Amino acid sequence: MTRAELVAQIKQKRSFLCIGLDPDLEKLPKHLLSHPDPIFEFNRQIIEATQDLCVAYKPNTAFYERFGVKGWQTLQRTYEAIPKNCFSIADAKRGDIGNTSSMYARAFFNKPWSGFDFDAVTVSPYMGEDSVAPFLEFENKWIIVLGHTSNRGSGDFQKLETPNGPLYLQVINTSKTWGNADNMMFVIGATQPSYTFKEVRIRVPDHFLLVPGIGAQGGSLEEVCEHGLNNDIGLLVNSSRQIIYASSGEDFAEAARREAINVQQQMQAILERRQLL
Amino acid sequence: MTRAELVAQIKQKRSFLCIGLDPDLEKLPKHLLSHPDPIFEFNRQIIEATQDLCVAYKPNTAFYERFGVKGWQTLQRTYEAIPKNCFSIADAKRGDIGNTSSMYARAFFNKPWSGFDFDAVTVSPYMGEDSVAPFLEFENKWIIVLGHTSNRGSGDFQKLETPNGPLYLQVINTSKTWGNADNMMFVIGATQPSYTFKEVRIRVPDHFLLVPGIGAQGGSLEEVCEHGLNNDIGLLVNSSRQIIYASSGEDFAEAARREAINVQQQMQAILERRQLL
Repeated sequence: MTRAELVAQIKQKRSFLCIGLDPDLEKLPKHLLSHPDPIFEFNRQIIEATQDLCVAYKPNTAFYERFGVKGWQTLQRTYEAIPKNCFSIADAKRGDIGNTSSMYARAFFNKPWSGFDFDAVTVSPYMGEDSVAPFLEFENKWIIVLGHTSNRGSGDFQKLETPNGPLYLQVINTSKTWGNADNMMFVIGATQPSYTFKEVRIRVPDHFLLVPGIGAQGGSLEEVCEHGLNNDIGLLVNSSRQIIYASSGEDFAEAARREAINVQQQMQAILERRQLL
Repeated sequence: MTRAELVAQIKQKRSFLCIGLDPDLEKLPKHLLSHPDPIFEFNRQIIEATQDLCVAYKPNTAFYERFGVKGWQTLQRTYEAIPKNCFSIADAKRGDIGNTSSMYARAFFNKPWSGFDFDAVTVSPYMGEDSVAPFLEFENKWIIVLGHTSNRGSGDFQKLETPNGPLYLQVINTSKTWGNADNMMFVIGATQPSYTFKEVRIRVPDHFLLVPGIGAQGGSLEEVCEHGLNNDIGLLVNSSRQIIYASSGEDFAEAARREAINVQQQMQAILERRQLL
């Protein structure tokens, strides 16, 4: 999906919501457990109930790999259930030496061999340019580089002072030169303070940011938007647990829809207030 | 596998060689391509030909994921073909927020669910403590944290100066406090200069180091050993392409064996010279 297509989807749906498909078998509604592939069935119903309210789905590979070959089959089915007008993100946080990263790029972008043709994949920057560059060779595909993540441990290294500021800003400054605003985004956690978004926007005013951490992790949509939005909207805000586990009963999909409507309406109000639609 | 068992294997085999199982379909001997699972058959024969000469095998997940579900099946078969007295490393370079890393840990360490029970997994430190800690909850399992890698891009961020020296040393200093020398190793590339190993050994005198980058990537075994060895040997030196692609003909397994013998003999000579056997 191109940037123009993504922005058009956001404006049409009045939403920049990304839903994280991170289904934990232990948290699934009990009535699904008799299904031959309960996790897929869960995802399928979540997608069906929310696809007009969000612009992106983001399965995290860990929740599938945990079941080995069977889990990978579930990921395959889930990928196929994501509507083609939604932006699809493999949240994989891969990264390796050049010739190996090129294999990871094929894993997520080269459908004839791997079965997957995601729009984007998340990548860890620790190993530097040759670990990131192979993902940029695929047309109309995106790489989403970890900047400042939403978790508790994000302070351990990402905030370390380097000669040009904290590491995460140095990562953004350097890695933005490897791609451009049409094929690269950055992960910035909603749990980070407002000045983080301010500092990031100084360095990458035009790039999209993928923002996890609202909902269960405690980040605020309003605060993220205050400094995160740009003229092309420039945000994909992710919510996983708050939406997919809104109910643990048979009404889980309806409950997920209600939560997604709630977030979408907040987003629409913000976009209208800022005259971005 | 415990540290004592690993050291015993090294002394018995007079080798601290790890063989990287990173099979690229395009480089496989042509006669294997008619096999129902050529990559597995390649790995199986490589393992059969080298298992008395190395102490560890390290499949890199990228080379399997590239083929989607089928590739994951090949990884499963390959895992099962690794002898139980060899140390098995899932070279996956995973890392995510706490609850997600805990899924990755189960993917590689929890056989009843995932089919895998590797001895170790490689992990990227960028996301900090909660991304690493879940892997340490499994008894007799190891986490191998990326320190200073062997690739060209390793200089982009890992060498950045922080208040306590370059980032990779800060990563080692901080992450060593999350585990101990019985459940944590660090990746240090053989392509890094001798003083890197010297600096690392000052900080982690007792830990094992996983050292990729001899052979095709140009690192020198002698130089790695000069500062890398400790009283428990403390090194797993990896070679992939130099061994597995020693011949592209029908004699590929014999050729791999010859290359492995060559490396094993160099290792034995070094260990004898230093009276470490």
